[in-house]
Parts: sequence; C-alpha cells; structure tokens
Amino acid sequence: MKLDVGTCRRLVQTEPIARLATVRPGVDGRPGEVDLVPIVFAVDGDRLVSAVDHKPKTSTRLQRLANIRAEPRVTVLVDHYEADWDRLWWVRLRGEARVVDDGPGQRAAIEQLVGRYPQYESRPPTGPAIEVTITSWLGWSAT
Amino acid sequence: MKLDVGTCRRLVQTEPIARLATVRPGVDGRPGEVDLVPIVFAVDGDRLVSAVDHKPKTSTRLQRLANIRAEPRVTVLVDHYEADWDRLWWVRLRGEARVVDDGPGQRAAIEQLVGRYPQYESRPPTGPAIEVTITSWLGWSAT
Repeated sequence: MKLDVGTCRRLVQTEPIARLATVRPGVDGRPGEVDLVPIVFAVDGDRLVSAVDHKPKTSTRLQRLANIRAEPRVTVLVDHYEADWDRLWWVRLRGEARVVDDGPGQRAAIEQLVGRYPQYESRPPTGPAIEVTITSWLGWSAT
Repeated sequence: MKLDVGTCRRLVQTEPIARLATVRPGVDGRPGEVDLVPIVFAVDGDRLVSAVDHKPKTSTRLQRLANIRAEPRVTVLVDHYEADWDRLWWVRLRGEARVVDDGPGQRAAIEQLVGRYPQYESRPPTGPAIEVTITSWLGWSAT
C-alpha cells in the first residue's frame, strides 16, 4: 500500500543507509548510465544531506560529484528488509542535488551527519557535502 | 578498496536484497528520471533474475517494466551495512535487462527465485520475470 508523506518522513529516520542514484552525462545523444551508491545521510524536512567521507580519491566518489554538477536531478531510496515480507517497506525521494564544497553550508551538513552517526565523531568527513532539496516523496509498504 | 570480480560474485549471494535502477523515457530531449526499487533476486554467472510478484497492478511495478522495454540498460546495487564501518561493502552491476512475460524463460527464472526465497514457496510470483545479462561488475569494500 502507498504511504503518506508523514509516514515516509518518519520511516527514513529509522534506517542508517540509503542509495543515491545519479546519472552520467549522456554520450552522442544517448542518456548516460546510472551510478548507484550506498550513502549515509540525514534528513531534516525536505533537505537531505550526505558527504564524501574524506578527500575523494577514488573515481566512484568523484564520479557522483561530477554527475550532480552536470545533472542535479537525483533519486534516493531508503528501504527496509526482513525475512517476514509483510514488514517490507521503501521510500523513494526525488530532488535537486548540489555539491557544497566548503563554507558554512558544508560545515552545517557535516554537523548534521556527525549528530546522526557516532562513527563520524572521531573522524568527521572532510570532503564536499551533497545537499538534496527533496521535491517528491513516494512510499510503499507490504501491509 | 576495489574488489575483484570473483569476490563480487561471492558477496552478492550473501545479501537477500538489491536495488534496481531503471530510467524513464526522456521528455523533450531531457533524460528521463531514474526509478529505483528494492528487488529480491538470484544471480547465476552473469545472469540476474528478479520478478514482479503477482499480476502487476501498481504503477511502480508497471513502470519498471515499461522503463526496461524502452531502455534495457540497468544498474543494480547490492550493499552491506553494519555499524562497524570497516565491514561495509557494495557491488554494482550493469547489464542489459529484458522482460520475460511468460514461457519457459519466465518459469526458469521463477524456479531460481523460489529456490533462494522460502517466502516464495507458498506463493510463487506469477507476473513477468526480469532477466539481466550482466555486462560489468564493480565492487568496493572498506577494508
């Protein structure tokens, strides 16, 4: 069954991980491939933040930032799995992303993430933040 | 660190769920939005199968089939989360998908899924199968 937005907002707070889909620039008029990575995240209202953990060195981390700069429309999925399939649910967000390289915006995003993840406390992310302005919520649950 | 393909193949067998990214047809030359849903799946060699549980009624289930028919290139993510971030890993597959509506191909896919998921035994999926020919494997682990 379809979930109302209030339930979607509540449920995304219960999962530690989401998946971020960004799109590579197209080639020769053909749409680009989708890049898909797990992210840790924090949501406040219609604003989702994530971060690139440290100075991004690997190509996959640079790629998602390059993708967002070229095509800000992103899709994010938060889902819940249990062996009891009556308890499955997922929430899909769409929004406009931007890369926040530094400054107060980047620091605020990092603070929000450190508040949610004790793992970040001893080693907060130093790379760019990703900020998504959520434009739509869609949710489904099995029961 | 990057994972070799053999490790990727082994790891995807350990997770019950994956996320499937398909792309909507573009509008006015602008690339279509990405649809992202959790799927149960089975992988054998370079072939991944999934199914639409029962006669698809909801728009999200129909949408993924329509997307694949228009743009067969899909991306699939299998990931593993733990509070101990040294144990994180993910595997990303790309491939060419097709919708198998019925016939021996659909039945073989369903059998494979029923073999992996006891939840399907009492009520095997009756809708179309999705078959992905995997063309690339990419994997990452924290340690």
